[in-house]
Amino acid sequence: METLMLLSAEEAALRREKVQRLMRDRGIDGILVNDNANLFYFTGRVYAGFAYIPAEGSGLWLVRRPVELEGDGVAYIHRPEDIPSRLAEAGIAMPRKLGLEADIMPYTTVCRLMEVFKPAETDNCTPLIRMARSVKTPFEAELMRQSGIKHEQVYRKVPGLYRTGMTDHELQVEIERLSRLEGCLGVFRISGQSMELFMGNILCGKNADVPTPYDFAMGGRGLDPSLPVGASGDEIRRGTTVMVDLNGDFTGYMTDMTRVFSVGDLPQLALDAHQCSIDICRMFEKQALPGVEAKELYHAAADMAEERGLSRYFMGHRQHAGFVGHGLGIEINEWPVIAPRSRDVLAAGNMIALEPKFVIPEVGAVGIENTYHITPDGAVALTGAPEEIVALL
Amino acid sequence: METLMLLSAEEAALRREKVQRLMRDRGIDGILVNDNANLFYFTGRVYAGFAYIPAEGSGLWLVRRPVELEGDGVAYIHRPEDIPSRLAEAGIAMPRKLGLEADIMPYTTVCRLMEVFKPAETDNCTPLIRMARSVKTPFEAELMRQSGIKHEQVYRKVPGLYRTGMTDHELQVEIERLSRLEGCLGVFRISGQSMELFMGNILCGKNADVPTPYDFAMGGRGLDPSLPVGASGDEIRRGTTVMVDLNGDFTGYMTDMTRVFSVGDLPQLALDAHQCSIDICRMFEKQALPGVEAKELYHAAADMAEERGLSRYFMGHRQHAGFVGHGLGIEINEWPVIAPRSRDVLAAGNMIALEPKFVIPEVGAVGIENTYHITPDGAVALTGAPEEIVALL
Repeated sequence: METLMLLSAEEAALRREKVQRLMRDRGIDGILVNDNANLFYFTGRVYAGFAYIPAEGSGLWLVRRPVELEGDGVAYIHRPEDIPSRLAEAGIAMPRKLGLEADIMPYTTVCRLMEVFKPAETDNCTPLIRMARSVKTPFEAELMRQSGIKHEQVYRKVPGLYRTGMTDHELQVEIERLSRLEGCLGVFRISGQSMELFMGNILCGKNADVPTPYDFAMGGRGLDPSLPVGASGDEIRRGTTVMVDLNGDFTGYMTDMTRVFSVGDLPQLALDAHQCSIDICRMFEKQALPGVEAKELYHAAADMAEERGLSRYFMGHRQHAGFVGHGLGIEINEWPVIAPRSRDVLAAGNMIALEPKFVIPEVGAVGIENTYHITPDGAVALTGAPEEIVALL
Repeated sequence: METLMLLSAEEAALRREKVQRLMRDRGIDGILVNDNANLFYFTGRVYAGFAYIPAEGSGLWLVRRPVELEGDGVAYIHRPEDIPSRLAEAGIAMPRKLGLEADIMPYTTVCRLMEVFKPAETDNCTPLIRMARSVKTPFEAELMRQSGIKHEQVYRKVPGLYRTGMTDHELQVEIERLSRLEGCLGVFRISGQSMELFMGNILCGKNADVPTPYDFAMGGRGLDPSLPVGASGDEIRRGTTVMVDLNGDFTGYMTDMTRVFSVGDLPQLALDAHQCSIDICRMFEKQALPGVEAKELYHAAADMAEERGLSRYFMGHRQHAGFVGHGLGIEINEWPVIAPRSRDVLAAGNMIALEPKFVIPEVGAVGIENTYHITPDGAVALTGAPEEIVALL
């Protein structure tokens, strides 16, 4: 037997109570979640089943698999229809107003659960949990700091992996190997089903300007139209850049980091745009304070690009991304979002990946990305690899 | 500009008409899908947006990203609310009965689309598309055959990657690298959000018996409770098995294959169980004919395990999987399902991964998995690596 709850009692309470405060504000009596990211958030492990969190008191962990878990609040179920009896056995009243993950859960699953609970009222609890998860606890921040350290170790070794004549895909595979040996879990959690990625992207030269269907900051043709993003299998050419933006999930919490490498000399435009990205990060480190509006930070970044005459390359060239930064943690697309129409306001404890990037036609992508911890004293980077463009040859 | 449709006109029609026949049987006037696997099925590419398929005639491809796609039936949208005007412009009547992917699409998305379409009636079109996709076209079968060839090439090279003292994770990383260099796309598509995996599993020794939350045939502790499946990071020990069950997605269509390697001598029980698995595959190759019930095949397999006194190890030991085979193609969990209560009936053109496996305590997992093409003459394996246990040292 093994204990289901892998968080300390204090940590589990901290996370749960943050959600419970938001639940009570909306008059929700209980929420039922089964998204893996949310189960991991509440318990420190992924299991198959549900978590029921009442507006007050401890959670109930309704487990289908694995067998042999135990501890406070653990109850086994075969099907969702078993949940009401488990609640009754635990002395938990059925909720009048039930919160369900309506932005994530399939339509038929929500309908089935409404049939099981027959609540007087139902509410969408996805935004509540996203809001709670956007402010990391000190323990979560520590897990991200650890991911950042390993992520940095991998990036520092990139120059040693390059060989003349390599394709972008071959270089990516060698970095993936190194990253996995360093302990990268590989899995790249993205909320929602529309975005897909394998271990991140390496973008070289012209391929950086190929539009993709995905809502990532950068493009790339990919190896196949079933996954049209990232490395194309083309040889890395002299006079172009190699942008590395790979998975930083070493602890269940991921950092996001981008660095640029070069083969041969680059035109001044590319060097200037890269410096602009670094300068935008320096600006962000000072201005990204709790209470600041996310959209202000987007405009401050876009304005710096415009002042230097770089707008047409900013966040893409043939196709532009609509944001310059995003929250992250268990998933890569958490809150807040640094975008022109974002209504988000920064809070201490946010983790934000800022990625002011530029695509220079025929040369490739430049710019950096750092993961920042928002504190009352400014944004602190967790991703410390050298920011300047590093020559591969 | 690039053409959206990457399938030949004949291939696109073949796939669409299969779904349209099932739509007409249920009186559905049109379906709207946006799942990446389904967009890939209908067009041969993944894009952001929707596909609208009327009960008769060609589809309309409603694209948000990437920019610069063109061709018959391509219409750009910003938001779902733009869809009715695009239908009108294409001369397509609004559906009275609309089919939506209710088993996949989040609740709030379905509600939004019902508001946009205000159909007199709505139906769940997920089962229709799953049914259509379960019978592969000759072109789809060819893509799977190509994946199988590359998958086999990778597995044949596994013995050369092993070094004494390696951990299961280290061996997995070397196989992953080889597979990626061979062209594996890495992404592992699974319908639904509850199952997660990175590039598949390597299971060594005792770790094979650790129960996981996921509905895969085999277990493993994993490296972290955020992804509790597969390799544990422990050293591979003498007298144990190494089961390799890695991603076979080389073409957007994946094969599934498992092979077993050994370090040192194995007990007779493990050898017998492995032979039983091979014998179950031979039985399946003869009996898995169009028209046969999936559950019959499950029982035939379970009976063979029972006759040899191997039931307690069959499909797991501490935790048992509830199936012995599954359909696959674009995703790893397609129809039909070879399980005791399956209502599926085999059809020519099905692709089925059969994985009769056994977990022998202290020794590890044994058994093989092949991907089979169901034909009127029997099941033809697409995965040809040697089936016997191959010694690593």
